[in-house]
Amino acid sequence: MQKILLNCDMGESFGAWTMGMDEAVMPHVDCANIACGFHASDPSIMRRTVALAVQHNVRIGAHPSYPDLVGFGRRSMNCSAQEVEDLLLYQIGALGGICRAEGGRLSYVKPHGALYNDMMRKPELLRAVLRAVARFDVSLPLMLLARRDNREAHTLAAEQGITLWFEAFADRGYDADGYLLPRNQPGAVHHDPERILQQALTFARGEELCASDGSALLLRADSLCVHGDNAESVAVVARIRAALDAL
Amino acid sequence: MQKILLNCDMGESFGAWTMGMDEAVMPHVDCANIACGFHASDPSIMRRTVALAVQHNVRIGAHPSYPDLVGFGRRSMNCSAQEVEDLLLYQIGALGGICRAEGGRLSYVKPHGALYNDMMRKPELLRAVLRAVARFDVSLPLMLLARRDNREAHTLAAEQGITLWFEAFADRGYDADGYLLPRNQPGAVHHDPERILQQALTFARGEELCASDGSALLLRADSLCVHGDNAESVAVVARIRAALDAL
Amino acid sequence: MQKILLNCDMGESFGAWTMGMDEAVMPHVDCANIACGFHASDPSIMRRTVALAVQHNVRIGAHPSYPDLVGFGRRSMNCSAQEVEDLLLYQIGALGGICRAEGGRLSYVKPHGALYNDMMRKPELLRAVLRAVARFDVSLPLMLLARRDNREAHTLAAEQGITLWFEAFADRGYDADGYLLPRNQPGAVHHDPERILQQALTFARGEELCASDGSALLLRADSLCVHGDNAESVAVVARIRAALDAL
Amino acid sequence: MQKILLNCDMGESFGAWTMGMDEAVMPHVDCANIACGFHASDPSIMRRTVALAVQHNVRIGAHPSYPDLVGFGRRSMNCSAQEVEDLLLYQIGALGGICRAEGGRLSYVKPHGALYNDMMRKPELLRAVLRAVARFDVSLPLMLLARRDNREAHTLAAEQGITLWFEAFADRGYDADGYLLPRNQPGAVHHDPERILQQALTFARGEELCASDGSALLLRADSLCVHGDNAESVAVVARIRAALDAL
Repeated sequence: MQKILLNCDMGESFGAWTMGMDEAVMPHVDCANIACGFHASDPSIMRRTVALAVQHNVRIGAHPSYPDLVGFGRRSMNCSAQEVEDLLLYQIGALGGICRAEGGRLSYVKPHGALYNDMMRKPELLRAVLRAVARFDVSLPLMLLARRDNREAHTLAAEQGITLWFEAFADRGYDADGYLLPRNQPGAVHHDPERILQQALTFARGEELCASDGSALLLRADSLCVHGDNAESVAVVARIRAALDAL
Repeated sequence: MQKILLNCDMGESFGAWTMGMDEAVMPHVDCANIACGFHASDPSIMRRTVALAVQHNVRIGAHPSYPDLVGFGRRSMNCSAQEVEDLLLYQIGALGGICRAEGGRLSYVKPHGALYNDMMRKPELLRAVLRAVARFDVSLPLMLLARRDNREAHTLAAEQGITLWFEAFADRGYDADGYLLPRNQPGAVHHDPERILQQALTFARGEELCASDGSALLLRADSLCVHGDNAESVAVVARIRAALDAL
Repeated sequence: MQKILLNCDMGESFGAWTMGMDEAVMPHVDCANIACGFHASDPSIMRRTVALAVQHNVRIGAHPSYPDLVGFGRRSMNCSAQEVEDLLLYQIGALGGICRAEGGRLSYVKPHGALYNDMMRKPELLRAVLRAVARFDVSLPLMLLARRDNREAHTLAAEQGITLWFEAFADRGYDADGYLLPRNQPGAVHHDPERILQQALTFARGEELCASDGSALLLRADSLCVHGDNAESVAVVARIRAALDAL
Repeated sequence: MQKILLNCDMGESFGAWTMGMDEAVMPHVDCANIACGFHASDPSIMRRTVALAVQHNVRIGAHPSYPDLVGFGRRSMNCSAQEVEDLLLYQIGALGGICRAEGGRLSYVKPHGALYNDMMRKPELLRAVLRAVARFDVSLPLMLLARRDNREAHTLAAEQGITLWFEAFADRGYDADGYLLPRNQPGAVHHDPERILQQALTFARGEELCASDGSALLLRADSLCVHGDNAESVAVVARIRAALDAL
């Protein structure tokens, strides 16, 4: 069994504003999803974040977004498929330019926020994302949400020759189809570190999860998304890391 | 003697706004300086402009700028050398990403507007620009203003291993040191197409120019900067192209 | 019968980019919808546009938008009602500041593009818009689309004490409910100046229109939206102006 | 003797990013310099900050800036006097619009960062700032740096009919002319709370300060600039507040 990778959003500061504890969390993860300037980050922050990832031998992923800095890329925008393809190429290329300066290289792409959610619901957007990745570098995997039924994503990815990396969330509740429960529902977000750790291990072992309706849910995940927002979440990441290493 | 290259700023539209007659001028030039989104252009316009350049077999140059969209990159900003280096990497990378999607490739870098002017006056900025180019791809030439005395630029470029392409202006008056006359001075801008054509040929033949003080000025130029703003300037470019081809 | 007012989007240039023939069309209209910097315009363009409106004694309307400069405010964004209320206050206030400097005053508010469309479809957004106007100045009318049935808009406006100005389009086809036909449908946009002129007079006289399904449609319009994009559309505006003045 | 006012920069968060402890410091100050969206803040943050100021009966000042969000308005930009005048009107108006929604009112204007510094050094920029304030509301004072010799500022302000509020810094060292020592010089920034408190009282009592060359420096200050960046600085503000109230 392939070891499950820990991925974390990074480089989410902007200008004079700091967000996230990148230096604390970087040593514990495998993959850094680095913001590309459209929802967060700027060229100098991207450069420092890439350098930090290189230093810790962490895979660098482009984390592109809708162009919505004030909304942190969390608001869906009615961009056309062509616009999405183009703004991905721009952002992936920009991060690629920074990587060249720091001796790093891009290893995958994971869209951010509303673009990620829209891509999971609208095949024409997923196709646009896949086309952008394929045009940039067909060897780069796309990271997306693992669900019970991933056939449509597999079909679209195969058309473009793109590898998919499925990710799961150790701290979120799932419905029977493998979608994340909306944040306003009870059980949507786990706060107990022990619970989060157990769910991480469930994914890592390839075991079934209990969905919100009580049914068994099997999600095959290549990666777990973890969070470095604050000291508490970093501590959880460190525990997950240790537990995965002990498997 | 190396044939002199015609370069022209391109891709200066933005969103719903159009600027420049890129389609009309592209067939006549050798090098397209393509805006990278900080003073003009957006991902979709960059993509169309790159596709147009590829179609006409025109060399693609990154045309990065200070981050000043509303000021079109024409206002000097007190950015640090590090900031300049980083924002160049970002913009060059972004255009590079678009190029990959269109089967094009970056051939050189030419900073825009106030950044270009500041780079010509401040060695620490020129060094930052050179460092960014070297870190991105040391084989890319940097295009800059030909002056009477280019020794400092040569020294700094040699430190980074970067080739310099010097450009001259067929439609501008020069002072005795080979600097462009400020636009508010008489003789700063030539409007007569015949005069512009003759100055282009002067540069192309490697002949001396008459500076504003009457002295002879020899500027060795690898490229001539021409303009595709409107039908008149495009017509001038077509005449220069024909005259150069007839040399 | 109240004379019908001609309104036109103005101040849609941005930085170095020009859009629209504001100087040519301003003499012919009653109301200038002036962009407030979120989809178009900048402080200096707003100031020149306000000065032009003041000079021609044209009513000044704030034309606020979603924050989407590159998309010209034409892409729906999933902003919350609170965000919409706040970004309207900001933009209306900004234009109000410019007006004070030019001896003008705000006379009404008309949202732009996707925000306008979303407001017509989503009561919670219309309420947010009305609340912003009411908080800024309850005496300012809100301009919106005249439909067959405007009862919901009237109810929401009454809650906030806001007067509504309904507008109609002389160059657009309507469905039986008084909605504009989508632009990709046949008959959605009239190009024949004579046809546009006749439809303008139909609205001005308070007569019934023929909807796309052949039914009679009565739209009570306080204002007609006209366009100053190019010489042809300005010529149409001049003809409509003359015809209205001759009624 | 007029009581000296404590002013503090506020509303410097942006979108998802938080900066400053506005809620903690607001109860201790007299004047809130509220960012207007060009270097920090957004419409929703401005609204919450204005509401907080109204709640604590704190005077609201517009804190406009060069348009440089990523640089936090700290980088000088070569804007023309006309551009500065216009962008001030825009920002002051925008904050004014937010104030109307919250039952507050603008009480003064204090430019931010590089614009503030440039205004203190370039009379044509100070004149542009004064003109913007005068055009918006001639009754609004302009807050600027108290120096040994304020005659030029007084002359320019008198031309526009604008009242000046001079501010001083309790935590900064001064040269003999009353300019702040550059931050890279020894003694430029005081870190000892006791020292800061004593300097605040020196200003409040209208006493002489000891300049960096040992000379006595009398600065007449209407206001002291204090900082709410973190818990330490807020604690210092609380001590200054208490000491001033006890005078």
